Amino acid sequence: MTWPGGATFAVSITVDVDGWYGLPGGGRGSEARLTARSERMYGVTRGLPRILAVLARAGVAGTFYVPGAVAADHPGALAAIVDGDHEVGHHGHRHLRPDEVDEARQLEELRSGLAALSAVSPSGYRAPGWELTPSTLRALGELGFTHDSSLMGDDRPYPAQAGGRALWELPVHWSLDDAPHFAGGGDPAVLAEIWHAELGVAAAERRHITYTLHPEILGRPHRVAILERLIDDAQARGAWLAPHAAIVGQLPPP
Amino acid sequence: MTWPGGATFAVSITVDVDGWYGLPGGGRGSEARLTARSERMYGVTRGLPRILAVLARAGVAGTFYVPGAVAADHPGALAAIVDGDHEVGHHGHRHLRPDEVDEARQLEELRSGLAALSAVSPSGYRAPGWELTPSTLRALGELGFTHDSSLMGDDRPYPAQAGGRALWELPVHWSLDDAPHFAGGGDPAVLAEIWHAELGVAAAERRHITYTLHPEILGRPHRVAILERLIDDAQARGAWLAPHAAIVGQLPPP
Amino acid sequence: MTWPGGATFAVSITVDVDGWYGLPGGGRGSEARLTARSERMYGVTRGLPRILAVLARAGVAGTFYVPGAVAADHPGALAAIVDGDHEVGHHGHRHLRPDEVDEARQLEELRSGLAALSAVSPSGYRAPGWELTPSTLRALGELGFTHDSSLMGDDRPYPAQAGGRALWELPVHWSLDDAPHFAGGGDPAVLAEIWHAELGVAAAERRHITYTLHPEILGRPHRVAILERLIDDAQARGAWLAPHAAIVGQLPPP
Amino acid sequence: MTWPGGATFAVSITVDVDGWYGLPGGGRGSEARLTARSERMYGVTRGLPRILAVLARAGVAGTFYVPGAVAADHPGALAAIVDGDHEVGHHGHRHLRPDEVDEARQLEELRSGLAALSAVSPSGYRAPGWELTPSTLRALGELGFTHDSSLMGDDRPYPAQAGGRALWELPVHWSLDDAPHFAGGGDPAVLAEIWHAELGVAAAERRHITYTLHPEILGRPHRVAILERLIDDAQARGAWLAPHAAIVGQLPPP
Repeated sequence: MTWPGGATFAVSITVDVDGWYGLPGGGRGSEARLTARSERMYGVTRGLPRILAVLARAGVAGTFYVPGAVAADHPGALAAIVDGDHEVGHHGHRHLRPDEVDEARQLEELRSGLAALSAVSPSGYRAPGWELTPSTLRALGELGFTHDSSLMGDDRPYPAQAGGRALWELPVHWSLDDAPHFAGGGDPAVLAEIWHAELGVAAAERRHITYTLHPEILGRPHRVAILERLIDDAQARGAWLAPHAAIVGQLPPP
Repeated sequence: MTWPGGATFAVSITVDVDGWYGLPGGGRGSEARLTARSERMYGVTRGLPRILAVLARAGVAGTFYVPGAVAADHPGALAAIVDGDHEVGHHGHRHLRPDEVDEARQLEELRSGLAALSAVSPSGYRAPGWELTPSTLRALGELGFTHDSSLMGDDRPYPAQAGGRALWELPVHWSLDDAPHFAGGGDPAVLAEIWHAELGVAAAERRHITYTLHPEILGRPHRVAILERLIDDAQARGAWLAPHAAIVGQLPPP
Repeated sequence: MTWPGGATFAVSITVDVDGWYGLPGGGRGSEARLTARSERMYGVTRGLPRILAVLARAGVAGTFYVPGAVAADHPGALAAIVDGDHEVGHHGHRHLRPDEVDEARQLEELRSGLAALSAVSPSGYRAPGWELTPSTLRALGELGFTHDSSLMGDDRPYPAQAGGRALWELPVHWSLDDAPHFAGGGDPAVLAEIWHAELGVAAAERRHITYTLHPEILGRPHRVAILERLIDDAQARGAWLAPHAAIVGQLPPP
Repeated sequence: MTWPGGATFAVSITVDVDGWYGLPGGGRGSEARLTARSERMYGVTRGLPRILAVLARAGVAGTFYVPGAVAADHPGALAAIVDGDHEVGHHGHRHLRPDEVDEARQLEELRSGLAALSAVSPSGYRAPGWELTPSTLRALGELGFTHDSSLMGDDRPYPAQAGGRALWELPVHWSLDDAPHFAGGGDPAVLAEIWHAELGVAAAERRHITYTLHPEILGRPHRVAILERLIDDAQARGAWLAPHAAIVGQLPPP
């Protein structure tokens, strides 16, 4: 692979802006749990601006996967993402895990999410909970999506068959996601070290790599420095930092 | 924000003194589990004095959130907290999680706790298990509380609507709480590093920050040094260390 | 407290030799799980000798809490413990957790364990799973035990009322036990650091401290060095290393 | 023990190539969970070649325990293992845990696995989930297997009675397996340190040691360096690195 500007490898910073819909079951039944909801709302109102500021200072555009209902609830948050020249991706509507609802509901999640995000016309999708199903994947092809970022079948972009069409899969991994690392504790220095190590391998292999952040997790005051250092490191190594849609733009048809 | 004495930022050390009521379900059904109960009692009889001694040596006043039943069972512990010029906050009566009982029981927890703590007239509240509900929040407003410390909606104090009134929310976070870090193990050096890092950001942002301790956890002999070093660090950085009620006293009406 | 030989503090190394009875439910229903059983058997046949060798080289006597059925199954293991001049304590018969069986069964566990350990006449007891109940505690008093090591109500020895008599409680804690630290992973260097830190506090406070080991955990080849260094450190600090019974011998009547 | 070429100790690198059959229940019911399946498939298609390349560069032959169905699904993967002069061991057919199915199904797993692996005639077996049962062990003897690697009863090879015959057990341990370490996070530096420490003890004791890897875990780009350094370290210490079958070839009849 070659990347724009003579870059030797490519990095995508992706951010899942789930709001309280990210609680189990899409947040249903959590009405009485104000603390759990407030933690998730913190992501939208405090963590997201902090992450946007880091990206703006570094001149980096990322991809923000946003459930439709979050965009509808927080038009200002969506506008701030768009104003920063970032990509907005589809992340369901109420963040229902595709593997936990029937096919009709999966399609409804896709359609409602598209309607709520119609102003940004998302061309990429990420399954809530990284639980992509055959039904949803097929529908992504029918709906004309060009890329998905939910699977772990490779550490390089790879084509995935979505019904009668193919799209590009930009794969993820648990070790490159902040959520499992900080579930129940977690040492920020260890996550920084892991992300740094994987960056070095991606550079050596001249490939693309996707990091996944959650604004209520990595957007906490003392954790966002991990992102700052990762971007510094990536830029020092000559990476091309670009959103998923721009990465796909450099690839041949899948 | 400006703080007394020209301090650039403010720090509250808060301690949840749960006793054996802190066991699941308010400790009901734990009668035969002497070890689990004794671990919690250790907090009241050994951990609490150790934490009080650290605060006294440093000249720091903190906020102790105490369930009413703990105050009733341990009048000496309550007196020691009061004698140290610390704030006593309401922490339920039998430490029942508001989200696990009905509204009547939530109100009963508030009323019984107030009765048991009547000598100290608490003006602040923290929900057991950090599980604040709309019903309990509304009742806090009706009962005249001026501040709560259970939510995570910001990293700065923020107004919360409690029925017809507003009160100040002094937010918490899992990473600033000793309990999740030491659940099932935990490296004291990592917690110290996280707390130190967050202190640095709070200082840079000239804001208020709340740390949460449990006397059976951070009051263990080899762990209390984390608190000593945190206070040393905060004082060296010019923090104003004050209880929640004093912080609220510096804020405008919510 | 003063300790023999002008020692400034005292340390007990205690080892729970559970065998496969330490599996959930006393190992019932584990007949088909050869690996789980073999891991536990490793403790008796390989970990135990390794720990005994470390203690012998250092000239340290410890306390080995042994379920009666383990002693019956492995007379050679019991003899090796006795030959090393260590104390043998009662640890149930089939390692049934007292809080999970009725009172009759608790008494049966005590009686059968005493019968199986009759050659060593144990005067100390530790509840399987550290789950001491009021029924078992009362029976300990009736049976003439002089000490128990299952509770966490203090970090110093303390009297516990056992029916009409009192005995000495030599308390334990999760942070001084190898089992929770290595459940699902665990960094040996962190456990060594925690144990070292607590040793320093115990020395400063001139008190007694109990460490708890499991031979299938700390008796693994690369982990036993933690015990070697702990003993070196304790001896360098002038500790009196002694079994629980010897500690109790230095204390006044409870 | 003495080892070929004057080596002072012996090391086996073993790799469990489970594919998506390694999901709970042999992967049944996971059809809709494309991400979970893709993570497992990554092990076969990406992690396995990376591990094979590390072994080839170092000139080391390992043992690959492969479920029959994985070999049938991925003949190229099996061929790559064979071409590297590695041993292929039996790892069930659909990776069903022996303790979770009845005896008939256990035998069926053994027979189907043998059929699928007939081209390589495996003489060693490892139970899926390390859950060897008496029924499966007995059948191993009847089927003529010479070694098993599922138990933890020693840290040296030991004879196990398999029905009327004996075979060599080459024992494993959780601390020498990548899977529990990285379940839910995990610091690569800590695993490297543990594996290094155990290597030092094995060298000092002049014995054999088995490490267990999973290609979807240690075959991730930033983790495979742990294996490289382990092999470097073992070779620098003068180890004989050999597959399980070759180790058994150096041992007397069990």
